[in-house]
Amino acid sequence: MNTFGTLFRITTFGESHGPAIGGIIDGMPAGMSLDMDALQAYVNRRSPGRSAVATQRRESDSVELLSGIGLDGVTLGTPIGFVVRNSDCRPQDYEAMRHTFRPSHADYTYQAKYGVRDHRGGGRASARETVARVVAGAIAYQALQRYGIEICAFTRCIGPVRYDISPADYAGVSNADVYASDLRCPDEATAQRMRRLLAEVQADGDSVGGIVSAVIKGVPAGLGEPVFGKFSATLAAAMMSIGAAKGFEYGMGFDGACCRGSQVIDPFTIDDGGAVVTSSNHSGGVQGGITNGMDVTFSVAFKPVATLRRPVDTITDSGERVTLSVGGRHDVCVVPRAVAVVDAMAAIVTLDALLQSRASRI
Amino acid sequence: MNTFGTLFRITTFGESHGPAIGGIIDGMPAGMSLDMDALQAYVNRRSPGRSAVATQRRESDSVELLSGIGLDGVTLGTPIGFVVRNSDCRPQDYEAMRHTFRPSHADYTYQAKYGVRDHRGGGRASARETVARVVAGAIAYQALQRYGIEICAFTRCIGPVRYDISPADYAGVSNADVYASDLRCPDEATAQRMRRLLAEVQADGDSVGGIVSAVIKGVPAGLGEPVFGKFSATLAAAMMSIGAAKGFEYGMGFDGACCRGSQVIDPFTIDDGGAVVTSSNHSGGVQGGITNGMDVTFSVAFKPVATLRRPVDTITDSGERVTLSVGGRHDVCVVPRAVAVVDAMAAIVTLDALLQSRASRI
Amino acid sequence: MNTFGTLFRITTFGESHGPAIGGIIDGMPAGMSLDMDALQAYVNRRSPGRSAVATQRRESDSVELLSGIGLDGVTLGTPIGFVVRNSDCRPQDYEAMRHTFRPSHADYTYQAKYGVRDHRGGGRASARETVARVVAGAIAYQALQRYGIEICAFTRCIGPVRYDISPADYAGVSNADVYASDLRCPDEATAQRMRRLLAEVQADGDSVGGIVSAVIKGVPAGLGEPVFGKFSATLAAAMMSIGAAKGFEYGMGFDGACCRGSQVIDPFTIDDGGAVVTSSNHSGGVQGGITNGMDVTFSVAFKPVATLRRPVDTITDSGERVTLSVGGRHDVCVVPRAVAVVDAMAAIVTLDALLQSRASRI
Amino acid sequence: MNTFGTLFRITTFGESHGPAIGGIIDGMPAGMSLDMDALQAYVNRRSPGRSAVATQRRESDSVELLSGIGLDGVTLGTPIGFVVRNSDCRPQDYEAMRHTFRPSHADYTYQAKYGVRDHRGGGRASARETVARVVAGAIAYQALQRYGIEICAFTRCIGPVRYDISPADYAGVSNADVYASDLRCPDEATAQRMRRLLAEVQADGDSVGGIVSAVIKGVPAGLGEPVFGKFSATLAAAMMSIGAAKGFEYGMGFDGACCRGSQVIDPFTIDDGGAVVTSSNHSGGVQGGITNGMDVTFSVAFKPVATLRRPVDTITDSGERVTLSVGGRHDVCVVPRAVAVVDAMAAIVTLDALLQSRASRI
Repeated sequence: MNTFGTLFRITTFGESHGPAIGGIIDGMPAGMSLDMDALQAYVNRRSPGRSAVATQRRESDSVELLSGIGLDGVTLGTPIGFVVRNSDCRPQDYEAMRHTFRPSHADYTYQAKYGVRDHRGGGRASARETVARVVAGAIAYQALQRYGIEICAFTRCIGPVRYDISPADYAGVSNADVYASDLRCPDEATAQRMRRLLAEVQADGDSVGGIVSAVIKGVPAGLGEPVFGKFSATLAAAMMSIGAAKGFEYGMGFDGACCRGSQVIDPFTIDDGGAVVTSSNHSGGVQGGITNGMDVTFSVAFKPVATLRRPVDTITDSGERVTLSVGGRHDVCVVPRAVAVVDAMAAIVTLDALLQSRASRI
Repeated sequence: MNTFGTLFRITTFGESHGPAIGGIIDGMPAGMSLDMDALQAYVNRRSPGRSAVATQRRESDSVELLSGIGLDGVTLGTPIGFVVRNSDCRPQDYEAMRHTFRPSHADYTYQAKYGVRDHRGGGRASARETVARVVAGAIAYQALQRYGIEICAFTRCIGPVRYDISPADYAGVSNADVYASDLRCPDEATAQRMRRLLAEVQADGDSVGGIVSAVIKGVPAGLGEPVFGKFSATLAAAMMSIGAAKGFEYGMGFDGACCRGSQVIDPFTIDDGGAVVTSSNHSGGVQGGITNGMDVTFSVAFKPVATLRRPVDTITDSGERVTLSVGGRHDVCVVPRAVAVVDAMAAIVTLDALLQSRASRI
Repeated sequence: MNTFGTLFRITTFGESHGPAIGGIIDGMPAGMSLDMDALQAYVNRRSPGRSAVATQRRESDSVELLSGIGLDGVTLGTPIGFVVRNSDCRPQDYEAMRHTFRPSHADYTYQAKYGVRDHRGGGRASARETVARVVAGAIAYQALQRYGIEICAFTRCIGPVRYDISPADYAGVSNADVYASDLRCPDEATAQRMRRLLAEVQADGDSVGGIVSAVIKGVPAGLGEPVFGKFSATLAAAMMSIGAAKGFEYGMGFDGACCRGSQVIDPFTIDDGGAVVTSSNHSGGVQGGITNGMDVTFSVAFKPVATLRRPVDTITDSGERVTLSVGGRHDVCVVPRAVAVVDAMAAIVTLDALLQSRASRI
Repeated sequence: MNTFGTLFRITTFGESHGPAIGGIIDGMPAGMSLDMDALQAYVNRRSPGRSAVATQRRESDSVELLSGIGLDGVTLGTPIGFVVRNSDCRPQDYEAMRHTFRPSHADYTYQAKYGVRDHRGGGRASARETVARVVAGAIAYQALQRYGIEICAFTRCIGPVRYDISPADYAGVSNADVYASDLRCPDEATAQRMRRLLAEVQADGDSVGGIVSAVIKGVPAGLGEPVFGKFSATLAAAMMSIGAAKGFEYGMGFDGACCRGSQVIDPFTIDDGGAVVTSSNHSGGVQGGITNGMDVTFSVAFKPVATLRRPVDTITDSGERVTLSVGGRHDVCVVPRAVAVVDAMAAIVTLDALLQSRASRI
């Protein structure tokens, strides 16, 4: 199941240290002039950047489109195949893991499932697979812009350091501010505190988790399908398919579980332009699984990176207990890089729902 | 998209106040002797019960199986069609909602999507649709028992009242204790506090949210598919497709976002029986999206019921601002009833993953 | 896999002698006023009628819709569940088949696949399952009429007796003529010859095959998806899923294999109204898998009914060789009844393609 | 919909004169040692060869696998991405078609659907896309061999010249004989007559159609799913998705429509080894949509190539009537090349059905 989506569908492939990551975007509507520079820039947003706390692996992530685009750069309606070469592989870094299962990684589970695995850098389970998602997201994003839909994802927490912003204010966050920050945190004061934390964590040979929050703006009312195809359920599936994700919530989320209905109900009213709006948005833009025209707000929790510079106890594939000290190049925190992936998956979900909604009425 | 699943698939139909709720279970393997009494008992677990805080609607939820079962009660491998009649409808209770959008309900979004809606009790968006999920879950559950897999879901929070139990201890909760409790909370002391809260909330004409937690025990290592078909992503999609769900987390969940890797890494070891186990289970039984053989633990946050006995501000479908006072019969808190639905969806996801895993190796 | 379709999807259930046949129609667009009388009349077109050569089983095939239709008879966009009760069952007729495999039936293959089967009247493999297809087709058909699309299927061959008409003339056949004929053959002279043949065949205790041909008129250009979702490939899948179908062809079909390109090429031209048309239609309205706006023409070959009144050699499920003489009520030729099923499946395929085509362009 | 399959799935991309054709094979079971030489040899079977009647386009069709294969050449269970570069493109040959619709090609239908198209060599609708199918088929084929399943497809007709062989004898045809023949006809006497016909046709600037027949040997009983997932229906969909296919039949096919039941019924018996067999095989190995353990036999009709060297009447995209004389390099008959594609699609369908059948029983 390396395919996601109903009408706008992506299918991806690639191991971390194989020749390439790539995919096929199927169902992209015809007739959109694709801005290749913007596409590459969008993909680059996922790249580690120069931060001291990010993996030192350097990939240019140069996207090669192989089909689906006409001579004049216009989408043809046919599938868009693409590859991104893996250039900076150092498989020798992973020789120690050939027979050893790294704790809290997918080494053991892939071995258990398949009886075989690519031990180099996590193989298919590596975060490197997300580059294919971001390429698809880049194209979906350009399509959404035609409909006035914008997405902004950002770092809200790194460990206990939290950017104090309520979902009602997500709409005010700008992608310019987000991507000006190496940590993808639009608030520089918070980013400073995050940087200090990351320096400590790195010094300890440790890692840390965090939370990405996001808003989808300009979504028309009526996206999402009953009952299993709820916009919120599909968004959850998209987000929870990202490697290190451990939790998803939208609107009031888990906090809402503690609340009373009278505190969180969203009264309908008519705005100055005559549009139906809600005077609050605890629902996070989705009611009964279908968008109501308000901003869609959600958050995704990511676990700490499972690769530590500290030695850890584990076993080998022959059942021997060993202590593992891992080389390789790894992030201390996955969140800054995950921001662009959350953005991309949100774009994919939204475009797919938009296309499906065209069949809602006779 | 009223279908869920890949090999074990359910498709459901039904409006709250239409003639019936029902569905088709496709892909149920042949050869299982179905215990009809156990099936009906499982379905009944979802029913409101006698609690003063639950909806006063009384449905017998008697399941009529229409196909797929042989004369001797054995599954045939063919689709199992079923209906559950809606007997206790009082559509007149909903006359006031014919032209008025209840806040934080799906009335407006269905109208926006379809240009038409069944205004009676939420129509397709009613919690009543979950009875079809529970029928399918009942059958999946019986299949899982053949493989030694057990599920236990329970009420962990109602509003701020929390049953204080860590995921590591979920495995100790018994369904007998859960379903002995009208609130589906296995700890009677906590249930007492929850009951007091609910009485207050009801007296206030208000409602309250809560959290259901669950464990899937006995899951073999190797279930779940890379990359988009992760066990955790599918479980998230299943849970977030339940009407009032606002959040999902598994293993350490959102708390893990605040942690350091060294705190939450799960070292592998070999247990006394020679099996690969982890000495802690912050991963919640899933690593890289694939089960590792440990208990799968997760939680689902539910919002407060959106129907209050208090008057609320809203608008009509002609854009007029009105104050709505709702009749009808409604739960004060959806959580006690949601427990059985969470259990059912977990059973569906697990059986589907189990069947898919048979194709993992040549 | 009891589901067919992408956006307009049907899922069906039911054994021949179980309580009911039924299904769920998912993805029916909202806002269509459903003519229930026309729906029932469409379903009745499949019924055996009074012909001496048809099965003597009498089913009223009364359709009960359980959801998805509003109080005013308008489609809600939500799934339409339905059941058709099996009233005229005589399972005792099938007692002889409990342990014996009827030759050229599905008895053995279901047993081989599932290790168990419903031996009564073919169970799931009975032609009775097609009633669910016809209900779905009836609704699709009404939707297509809104777009000026009409379908006409008819009996072209029964055994060697052939209604001599070329695909170019299919458009002239009227459903009124088709359904005025007990044999669904619009040409009464041919129908007479068919009737004589069928009387002979019946007197011999034998059965006979035949061919259904059909035309879909008014299909806009642009339906069908590359590469695997070709309109023609989906139509083939739909038709070949009908129980006794052995062959499918469209446009020039198998005859075209013998031809030269210069004989069968369809030159484009502009008609008097300024529309793009082809001056011949050997392509059968589909080029490169996508409709070109001309009539879609196709044929489906059906094998002779496998149940004979003559004794046949076969084996039991314990491997014993026996001679089987079958009771039960059976058609001598399936074709007259298959006509309505072909029509229904064509309607389903066309509506689904029409809905999908809305997502072709940005 | 550029994806085909349920558990073993292929998704393909590529325009005829774009940079590459490629695809992703998802659901290939882990643990199979892939013979890369055999894979390339299988792919090469599709290549035009040296025949004077085949297109003069020369492609090495060198397959580059990008993922899903371990260091030791063993399948990992993860998706297998691949590309085949288009090296011998001469887009200038197609300049005349930029604004002109070639009759009986997909030029007009793609334009009608998408409002835009790649005019060079048919773009996505070119037979060149089939190279991706053959790569996937090559891998499926190697998997099937592990289960003792063999496929043999061959040229049965070119125009009116027919290799006179009954389905009962297909099992005797060897791939060695088929691929020793430039026309993929295992009977050299017939191939001679076909060659003479093709020479005439070419001299006339014309083209001709034909029929490919095939057998799948060693298929176990029990493959295929009721009702819409019949083995025969899926096979039909697979074959009819090949560009120039106009008809599909299996077993007795269209001929069976003329027959009486007593002529074509397949009595069950027990063979010397104690296995259940039928003493004839008019059913073509499939009964009720499920394989019965006998050889699966089927045929696919292909239309004459639509590109003629003769001038043809057509219109431009501005509605002007013109006479078109086409350059480019084209086959006179598609059948010899289609043989390998039919073989590949049959392998894909069979492996997918085999994997699905593992979930048939509890």
